[in-house]
Amino acid sequence: MAESTDPDGTPVAELDLDRARRRGYPEAVLCAGKTPEQVGVIATTLREHGARTLFTRASAEHARAVLAVLPDAFHAPDCGLLAWPPEPPEPAGGRVLVVAAGTSDHPVAREALLTARHLGRSADLIVDVGIAGLHRVLGRLDDLRAARVIVVVAGMDGALPAVVAGLVAAPVVAVPTSTGYGAAFGGVAALLTMLNSCAPGVAVVNIDNGYGAGHLAAQIAAPS
Amino acid sequence: MAESTDPDGTPVAELDLDRARRRGYPEAVLCAGKTPEQVGVIATTLREHGARTLFTRASAEHARAVLAVLPDAFHAPDCGLLAWPPEPPEPAGGRVLVVAAGTSDHPVAREALLTARHLGRSADLIVDVGIAGLHRVLGRLDDLRAARVIVVVAGMDGALPAVVAGLVAAPVVAVPTSTGYGAAFGGVAALLTMLNSCAPGVAVVNIDNGYGAGHLAAQIAAPS
Amino acid sequence: MAESTDPDGTPVAELDLDRARRRGYPEAVLCAGKTPEQVGVIATTLREHGARTLFTRASAEHARAVLAVLPDAFHAPDCGLLAWPPEPPEPAGGRVLVVAAGTSDHPVAREALLTARHLGRSADLIVDVGIAGLHRVLGRLDDLRAARVIVVVAGMDGALPAVVAGLVAAPVVAVPTSTGYGAAFGGVAALLTMLNSCAPGVAVVNIDNGYGAGHLAAQIAAPS
Amino acid sequence: MAESTDPDGTPVAELDLDRARRRGYPEAVLCAGKTPEQVGVIATTLREHGARTLFTRASAEHARAVLAVLPDAFHAPDCGLLAWPPEPPEPAGGRVLVVAAGTSDHPVAREALLTARHLGRSADLIVDVGIAGLHRVLGRLDDLRAARVIVVVAGMDGALPAVVAGLVAAPVVAVPTSTGYGAAFGGVAALLTMLNSCAPGVAVVNIDNGYGAGHLAAQIAAPS
Amino acid sequence: MAESTDPDGTPVAELDLDRARRRGYPEAVLCAGKTPEQVGVIATTLREHGARTLFTRASAEHARAVLAVLPDAFHAPDCGLLAWPPEPPEPAGGRVLVVAAGTSDHPVAREALLTARHLGRSADLIVDVGIAGLHRVLGRLDDLRAARVIVVVAGMDGALPAVVAGLVAAPVVAVPTSTGYGAAFGGVAALLTMLNSCAPGVAVVNIDNGYGAGHLAAQIAAPS
Amino acid sequence: MAESTDPDGTPVAELDLDRARRRGYPEAVLCAGKTPEQVGVIATTLREHGARTLFTRASAEHARAVLAVLPDAFHAPDCGLLAWPPEPPEPAGGRVLVVAAGTSDHPVAREALLTARHLGRSADLIVDVGIAGLHRVLGRLDDLRAARVIVVVAGMDGALPAVVAGLVAAPVVAVPTSTGYGAAFGGVAALLTMLNSCAPGVAVVNIDNGYGAGHLAAQIAAPS
Amino acid sequence: MAESTDPDGTPVAELDLDRARRRGYPEAVLCAGKTPEQVGVIATTLREHGARTLFTRASAEHARAVLAVLPDAFHAPDCGLLAWPPEPPEPAGGRVLVVAAGTSDHPVAREALLTARHLGRSADLIVDVGIAGLHRVLGRLDDLRAARVIVVVAGMDGALPAVVAGLVAAPVVAVPTSTGYGAAFGGVAALLTMLNSCAPGVAVVNIDNGYGAGHLAAQIAAPS
Amino acid sequence: MAESTDPDGTPVAELDLDRARRRGYPEAVLCAGKTPEQVGVIATTLREHGARTLFTRASAEHARAVLAVLPDAFHAPDCGLLAWPPEPPEPAGGRVLVVAAGTSDHPVAREALLTARHLGRSADLIVDVGIAGLHRVLGRLDDLRAARVIVVVAGMDGALPAVVAGLVAAPVVAVPTSTGYGAAFGGVAALLTMLNSCAPGVAVVNIDNGYGAGHLAAQIAAPS
Repeated sequence: MAESTDPDGTPVAELDLDRARRRGYPEAVLCAGKTPEQVGVIATTLREHGARTLFTRASAEHARAVLAVLPDAFHAPDCGLLAWPPEPPEPAGGRVLVVAAGTSDHPVAREALLTARHLGRSADLIVDVGIAGLHRVLGRLDDLRAARVIVVVAGMDGALPAVVAGLVAAPVVAVPTSTGYGAAFGGVAALLTMLNSCAPGVAVVNIDNGYGAGHLAAQIAAPS
Repeated sequence: MAESTDPDGTPVAELDLDRARRRGYPEAVLCAGKTPEQVGVIATTLREHGARTLFTRASAEHARAVLAVLPDAFHAPDCGLLAWPPEPPEPAGGRVLVVAAGTSDHPVAREALLTARHLGRSADLIVDVGIAGLHRVLGRLDDLRAARVIVVVAGMDGALPAVVAGLVAAPVVAVPTSTGYGAAFGGVAALLTMLNSCAPGVAVVNIDNGYGAGHLAAQIAAPS
Repeated sequence: MAESTDPDGTPVAELDLDRARRRGYPEAVLCAGKTPEQVGVIATTLREHGARTLFTRASAEHARAVLAVLPDAFHAPDCGLLAWPPEPPEPAGGRVLVVAAGTSDHPVAREALLTARHLGRSADLIVDVGIAGLHRVLGRLDDLRAARVIVVVAGMDGALPAVVAGLVAAPVVAVPTSTGYGAAFGGVAALLTMLNSCAPGVAVVNIDNGYGAGHLAAQIAAPS
Repeated sequence: MAESTDPDGTPVAELDLDRARRRGYPEAVLCAGKTPEQVGVIATTLREHGARTLFTRASAEHARAVLAVLPDAFHAPDCGLLAWPPEPPEPAGGRVLVVAAGTSDHPVAREALLTARHLGRSADLIVDVGIAGLHRVLGRLDDLRAARVIVVVAGMDGALPAVVAGLVAAPVVAVPTSTGYGAAFGGVAALLTMLNSCAPGVAVVNIDNGYGAGHLAAQIAAPS
Repeated sequence: MAESTDPDGTPVAELDLDRARRRGYPEAVLCAGKTPEQVGVIATTLREHGARTLFTRASAEHARAVLAVLPDAFHAPDCGLLAWPPEPPEPAGGRVLVVAAGTSDHPVAREALLTARHLGRSADLIVDVGIAGLHRVLGRLDDLRAARVIVVVAGMDGALPAVVAGLVAAPVVAVPTSTGYGAAFGGVAALLTMLNSCAPGVAVVNIDNGYGAGHLAAQIAAPS
Repeated sequence: MAESTDPDGTPVAELDLDRARRRGYPEAVLCAGKTPEQVGVIATTLREHGARTLFTRASAEHARAVLAVLPDAFHAPDCGLLAWPPEPPEPAGGRVLVVAAGTSDHPVAREALLTARHLGRSADLIVDVGIAGLHRVLGRLDDLRAARVIVVVAGMDGALPAVVAGLVAAPVVAVPTSTGYGAAFGGVAALLTMLNSCAPGVAVVNIDNGYGAGHLAAQIAAPS
Repeated sequence: MAESTDPDGTPVAELDLDRARRRGYPEAVLCAGKTPEQVGVIATTLREHGARTLFTRASAEHARAVLAVLPDAFHAPDCGLLAWPPEPPEPAGGRVLVVAAGTSDHPVAREALLTARHLGRSADLIVDVGIAGLHRVLGRLDDLRAARVIVVVAGMDGALPAVVAGLVAAPVVAVPTSTGYGAAFGGVAALLTMLNSCAPGVAVVNIDNGYGAGHLAAQIAAPS
Repeated sequence: MAESTDPDGTPVAELDLDRARRRGYPEAVLCAGKTPEQVGVIATTLREHGARTLFTRASAEHARAVLAVLPDAFHAPDCGLLAWPPEPPEPAGGRVLVVAAGTSDHPVAREALLTARHLGRSADLIVDVGIAGLHRVLGRLDDLRAARVIVVVAGMDGALPAVVAGLVAAPVVAVPTSTGYGAAFGGVAALLTMLNSCAPGVAVVNIDNGYGAGHLAAQIAAPS
């Protein structure tokens, strides 16, 4: 454990640097809910220990605080992710395929994609494969069947993961997104659809949780 | 208006016998929530006025009370529907197609089918066309495209209406069912899926409301 | 299918240009949730293919991005809709009537109206016909009975569609709006009212979904 | 205060016999949730103090326990109400009108009617005045306008109170009922409709709370 | 009926000017959800017909639009209410007492108070009478017992109406407010408390609906 | 740890016999959800280890299974509790007072009372102290102020804990009960009221969780 | 596809016999919601095609209908599962470990265990490893770390999956159960806990969905 | 009681200055929902009576209004708390330990810590002790077991209080926080987890209610 303290000595966080050893995956810092100052303090501690880390849901201000300490960190502003060191490890294990139902689901899909890569998997992204035009899904059957695990990101009716799961042998990690309005209830409709999928083989994570989906996919596709 | 009273003169219901003239469709009596005695009183009033009527959500006891008064009524116990007179009118207007996602959705689909027929439409039923095996949907494309309106009945993830709507020009009447468990929440998950359908052209009715779906389909497919 | 890519080649969307042929209705682009840049890229692809399209829920920034590419597009800022080409097709099929319960429901009603027109129907709008003064509804009975389908837009108690449906033979497309406060729950109260309508013949769409209602009405009123 | 104890001396209830003096209305005993034995003990205490009382939501077993102690009590099994002494007081104050939207709402309407009478008001009941056929409401306009307060009992869409309130000067006490299925959610849909009534002048009570509605109406129509 | 149109002739609203005659109470315009321009158009129509009106939930911009047309209107910015003509009618009927549980409930309480006055009742306000210090309630017993109807405004636990109702013979109009945080759920907790009041005689209106409460109270306290 | 196995060796439960040492309070077995056979196997293991235990939410069948193994166990059928050994330990620490708002809350209050006693506290019970008649609460002020901790059990509006907490220095453990109907939502209304108590000093436990309340009270009143 | 029809030729189900080939896993028949007759018809079709199948959530009556047709089927009445042919395939791929938090979660855990085995994995079960006594979890660390995937079954607070996920490198499939009462809301509390797990690597399935969890685990642990 | 009035004499609040005597703890003013002017008026009244007070959830503007009147007040901007007089009383009673699961929970934890201190207890804070790395909890066992009461503050899965309660004899006050996103539902997920804790001894307060938790802890740890 490493304690981060702010300038006057108040503890900010107890980093779980042991996690990489214990679980085999690096620590991640959820920036949302923390002040940029707190994130900067944490980044400093990490630099001192040289530990591989992801920063997720980072606003522009969070990102500035991280980059001030770790100027060579990788930064994807479209999905609020930073990674340090900037280069992902050499890919190992099975292929991860990330599929986004619509353009609006892109940031969450990108967070999943980049997380899987920085956790050591080879990963690709396909966008705009909604079920309103099934030929778009069916046209990707070869790609879908070549993956060890498929992350499917969808908002609104959230029906894509069930359709995909019915077509392949691999497990599907389903990420509901808050895309939609009215009775989409900020992603709840999509979440419920995924939990009630007619097709077995659908693993659900929290709404908009691209990081969690990428992490889970990396674990599922881990080398034996 | 015709007032039904029970034996001691307490009014039971004011039947809207004018409805057929005003709206063009017969009255329907929702039996659930009424006592068999009340349903029997209503049946007696109807017989006196000779008005075409459906009885919906009738338990075995409700059915006995109706059949005691209208012994030639048509009775479909699998979906709790009775119709009087027993023969549907000569079909007119466009074709209604009813599609059920699973075997458990059968009673609701049957209620929709029979309602549409007794309101004067030609109607057919296809069962077990879930999205977990897309080939089952795609194998029915010709049937789907031949209908003036399609009623799609589905529980659990409720994703079938969106898939169907994306394949056809006709409007889809979507009926969520209470089939499922856990986070299906008695049909709420399917209801939300349908309300958030990516594909436009999906008209949603209440959970398990086969009668309402059949009625709406009959109106949509009405002769000009 | 046509792939839209942003300047560095990342795919933005796979447009379903086949949709007009397959379903008989043009594609629509939901702008909310997309960046203006993404909407601009999509507009460019559409221009290249000459495909009739609607842009819905477009902010001022989205509209600017569309108009930069399609300067002659029709733009209705009050309901965030753009249409290209700007002129709707020659009207065919039955009459669509859009009825708004209150002034606050106007934008959603306008979205339904314009959608129905740009999908090829003749359509009119009546506003402020709430049930708190029934004479306002009853005074419009001739207009209501002349339509092939009626779109009823209402927030707060959402009771107007049931009242209208009880007066006419045509199907009613009910659109709950987020008008209201407190236990209106952003349109949920109106949505539930509509799903539980005592009068059959009410087809419900998502909260504030004027586009979906207009599309559904256009399908219902389609020429045989 | 009067303490009721069961045979071994454990206290069962502290009756608020002072209530009639303090509030001007008699005590009521909600039987649901109590054992028949407890209800019997309470009835005994009441007999000893000679206090006017209502027993509400009494099952057949509860009723037997009350009638064993107070054999001359008035009993209305259709709505689970008992009253003692059996005769209501001489009516005073304004007229209470109870209106039920459908036959299934009858028990709740009866509970309101009888409560108002046993609290000293003159009260009448009209049944089956749903909004699906507006002529049924409009045909009762004179009755509606003659009342000092109107109790409107409705399930499903719960739209009747708003329609009535828009037609009269008197306050409306709205009682949602659990009549309905699916998205009626046991009366929640009707409750929300009533809370969001477009027409002001609607006082809402709990789902199925006929007693509360009758009590409130009696207070509103109390003689000055 | 009077139709308001915006400058290019699009209808904005159909004012229910008949309402004062039909119901005995003036029209009210809910400004929230309308543009200031629409509110200005409505104010102009009203001025032409000389009809007494309230404007509720008016922002500063709404108020400016009303005052530009009706410069002598009464304006209470603390609760967003305007009234025209500015002077309330001569009070008649019983006394209305408005009680607010806390300082944060003040705006809603003021809206109720002013509404009751502009609908022709004599009305007073007591603030900060929460149940955390019962002596504050009990110290006001004489005021409470002197009223024909009591409006009780409370957020958070919403328990005050039940406590007050247990102390008086008059009906209580309970207004839940959105005061509170966390599991107060924007007033839902207080709403449920009030609907489940142990003490009968509690009439509930929508969350933050001071206008509705004042209107209902004016009806209850109306002169016979 | 002690493993309980069923006759064919399948493990049934791993009892946390260490808990008394680690936490200072005995183990409790929640019977609901277990088969009587499983409960019997657990009772046998306990007898072998001689460990003090409570059995909660035991049906008559569960109780029979326990008593077959531990025939001298204390059994309170009114609240489904069994305790072994039957005698509670000698009381120590501060006084626990349990207050029930209504007769229907009695079983939950009894569960709290007996739990506190069998965990070594002196505890008393007061019933039917609802807020609809405040004099019932105020008449008990001396008892309330003499306790080290007060458990308040209430359903419906759940307002009693806030009223009590405003009158005393001691912490209040609030137990919402599922007493009530309609918008009581099985205790949710009371739960929310308690979580939003205006008066600080209210500790909330799960709906109907008399055991948890009694346990928490015993911990709060523990001897220093 | 194989069509099952009931004796009069009405289609009952279209079995997806192609699924084993397409997805690599056998078909499963959810018995809940089907009549025993329908299940019997399906079993007959399966026997004719010789396809490996699971029957889930089978009541005693469902089981009798299956065993009448497939008398050698494996039947586990404790979790309502039947499998045919009775012997699972030779295990391949990684180890599946199923962990149940409490005795009441046993049936769901067993369904997961047996599903994984009948889908070709080696699988074991550990019961009663709740977090109220952490030593029970920590004492199983070696078992936990030896698995390729861990299914964690928990009701009430649903906290066990997060604790386990924090200790291991393998992915965790979390199954919320409906064990609990009050604010457990039939498994919703546990479901939300699992979706919000602090520790990444938690894949959530529907409440009580042991079958889905076992299927997902089998896919994750599939041989490369 | 002391009445605060604003400059024109309108009453702002009735301060419960008697509370310290009656309950033994000072008054607290919840600033959120009040205007800075109202808070300033209240501060003036307090200064006149010299009463110890806390101001909670004070924005920068609220704080300025308080400090203008009470310039020596203690101000902790990180959690929006002010206290006057600035020095807490001499500590008495048992030790309070506040534990925060994550950095984002820090403000709520600080509010609990400072409240406990200003109510006269000795109190300490430990941060970032989440269950994703159990060693962080287990490493603090001595601190945890030394406290008379432990306040545990946690968002997201909210599982920490149950884990802590399983390790100690002292009662745990659990504070859910709104930390998290998606299905965290603003703290509802954590709230439900805590209410359903497997381990007894968990007292739950409202979401983000650090003040309430600190107050309750001070009462629990009060000197006998």
